[in-house]
Amino acid sequence: MKPAITYELIKQCPHTGARAGRIHTPHGSFDTPIFMPVGTQASVKTLAPEELKEMGAGIILSNNYHLFLRPGSKLVKEAGGLHKFMNWDRAILTDSGGFQVFSLGDLRKISEEGVTFRSHIDGSKKFLSPEIATQSQMDLGADIIMAFDECVPYPADFKYTRESMELTLRWAQRCKDTMTNPNQGLFGIVQGGMYKDLRIECANRLVDMDFPGYAVGGLSVGEPKELMYEMLDITLEHLPQNKARYLMGVGTPDCLVEGVMRGIDMFDCVYPTRVARNGTAMTWNGRLVIKNAQYEHDFHPIDEHCNCYTCRNYSRAYIRHLVRVNEIFGLRLLTIHNLHFLIDFMRQMRQSIMEDRFPEFYRKFTANFSFNAKSV
Amino acid sequence: MKPAITYELIKQCPHTGARAGRIHTPHGSFDTPIFMPVGTQASVKTLAPEELKEMGAGIILSNNYHLFLRPGSKLVKEAGGLHKFMNWDRAILTDSGGFQVFSLGDLRKISEEGVTFRSHIDGSKKFLSPEIATQSQMDLGADIIMAFDECVPYPADFKYTRESMELTLRWAQRCKDTMTNPNQGLFGIVQGGMYKDLRIECANRLVDMDFPGYAVGGLSVGEPKELMYEMLDITLEHLPQNKARYLMGVGTPDCLVEGVMRGIDMFDCVYPTRVARNGTAMTWNGRLVIKNAQYEHDFHPIDEHCNCYTCRNYSRAYIRHLVRVNEIFGLRLLTIHNLHFLIDFMRQMRQSIMEDRFPEFYRKFTANFSFNAKSV
Ligand SMILES: [Zn+2]
Ligand SMILES: [Zn+2]
Repeated sequence: MKPAITYELIKQCPHTGARAGRIHTPHGSFDTPIFMPVGTQASVKTLAPEELKEMGAGIILSNNYHLFLRPGSKLVKEAGGLHKFMNWDRAILTDSGGFQVFSLGDLRKISEEGVTFRSHIDGSKKFLSPEIATQSQMDLGADIIMAFDECVPYPADFKYTRESMELTLRWAQRCKDTMTNPNQGLFGIVQGGMYKDLRIECANRLVDMDFPGYAVGGLSVGEPKELMYEMLDITLEHLPQNKARYLMGVGTPDCLVEGVMRGIDMFDCVYPTRVARNGTAMTWNGRLVIKNAQYEHDFHPIDEHCNCYTCRNYSRAYIRHLVRVNEIFGLRLLTIHNLHFLIDFMRQMRQSIMEDRFPEFYRKFTANFSFNAKSV
Repeated sequence: MKPAITYELIKQCPHTGARAGRIHTPHGSFDTPIFMPVGTQASVKTLAPEELKEMGAGIILSNNYHLFLRPGSKLVKEAGGLHKFMNWDRAILTDSGGFQVFSLGDLRKISEEGVTFRSHIDGSKKFLSPEIATQSQMDLGADIIMAFDECVPYPADFKYTRESMELTLRWAQRCKDTMTNPNQGLFGIVQGGMYKDLRIECANRLVDMDFPGYAVGGLSVGEPKELMYEMLDITLEHLPQNKARYLMGVGTPDCLVEGVMRGIDMFDCVYPTRVARNGTAMTWNGRLVIKNAQYEHDFHPIDEHCNCYTCRNYSRAYIRHLVRVNEIFGLRLLTIHNLHFLIDFMRQMRQSIMEDRFPEFYRKFTANFSFNAKSV
């Protein structure tokens, strides 16, 4: 039987690890590299599915930890699954909730069996294990689901990181044993902290288990970017060419380019929606803080070359006004632009790979981009 | 020259004062009676213009007080006017700001010249007069603009109410003298508190000044509904058949039916957007509080017979989830439904007038509607 999730390699950059591909799912196929908008609680902040489709989103991400707590995975199953519940008929990926649970700090306790934690909502005691997290994700019914892993904090010593990696590997096997739905694909997650040999070992042993795709977890957790890229380099060397590769929680343009250059296919991050809440628009030059006084009488769009709904119809002055008076429509317009920007950014990157000019794309982007846009 | 705003009487109910008509403006015509969604700060809470058009909104309302303060009427003029600024090419009505200024209580001081007040935003001292309010509305460029009036609180004694009415009449003349834009229509506002003879006198003297339309102001300010209907009856007797009539700030279904029965053509109210913020949906039976536990596993739409975007695509259970976890999309879905409901409500009322069965509509509606919906 054909697996639910397959990766098709279409073009390899001859100079770097970058690759253009296509991922096939029970809810359609999408081109890679791709950025996945995040809809943690079964909604991409402020947006309707039609708006996500208009900008070309082929897959969105949601979160098992949040949905497990509210409204509950069983309720979503009863609704006919997450696609139907939230009116999204393209692909969905759910994170297992591992990252969220481990972010709770003192509120959680890890054992071989799983993790006992207190809900961030009402403090009630909850339990997640590889089996429960996987069953819950089967109830949600996303196309791609993630193994339940331990995300090691930064910094962490070798012994702790090694033991945690071993636990993550045992849990990965238990997730795999639990996952019985032929219409979903379970991805393994490579951990190993900032230790090259652990990263290699974790990658190799996960590949032996044979997942339809592999994520790189435990990065972008506070370490210097150079260290992250190093870990990425070594990890990707040990992942197979014929499977999808997903770098978790990374979504600033500079990291996206670096990730793609090393052969990553999928990214997700709350960055574009979170900065929209602060009145910030993403551009090819960097961040544009729309609240700034310089945009008060600026009747141009955020970006003259952007083809998004926001830039086609609204001026910086109008968006600035909405943000200043706390009108939600301002947040919505910025969210649309930022997600469109990132999706388009990935599309253009893919195009450069297809046309054998990714290194040129990389050079041009790096020369123009700084975190805070100057004269835009 | 043809006036900017004209009212066309199409059908008069033979049994009541209800009437079906059509109002023509430089930005298109719309059927009456009509409900106008409120976009106080140049945005109808959470919604895009396309969504308002989909539900059939022919005119929206914005507010001179708010826009005068932020972003400033001159800036909107510089942007090309309010239509262009907010990307809305159908009709707009702006309220003069009189009501908002008088709601400031101790923060404002009235003189013959105008009103000195402190901004609710930063406490800075501001001044509005009939001339300034009218010039500001000319800068905004709405199709219908309102006279700057004093709204008398409830209760108020006869002497105060009479003097205030005289002031409102003098100010109405000053507004008229200021308004020189042939592409806008200035409506007079009937005041007179809860005194029949003052209402009659104010209406007659405004009609002598000859406005393209008349509003009834100073109602729904805390008085019993029966008293409001009485004032409405007496006022409408003294307004001409060939001009538009607008009841300001009224938008609950029961008051809309009563207003239409007496011959009102236009209504506005923040009610549908405000109750959406409290997680409440409007229905033909009354209010449906979506947060209630009874809707947790309810996979039906808010209203099976509603054809709005929300009801076509989302369940009560999903909307309840969004509202509970504070996802803005839930507020957006409820706002869409509530505004669609009111616009459709007015459309069906108009249809009943056209088909000589308004009294039947009135009886059926009154029999089914209570403020809190039962078994829905
Ligand atoms: Zn844009
Ligand atoms: Zn509806």
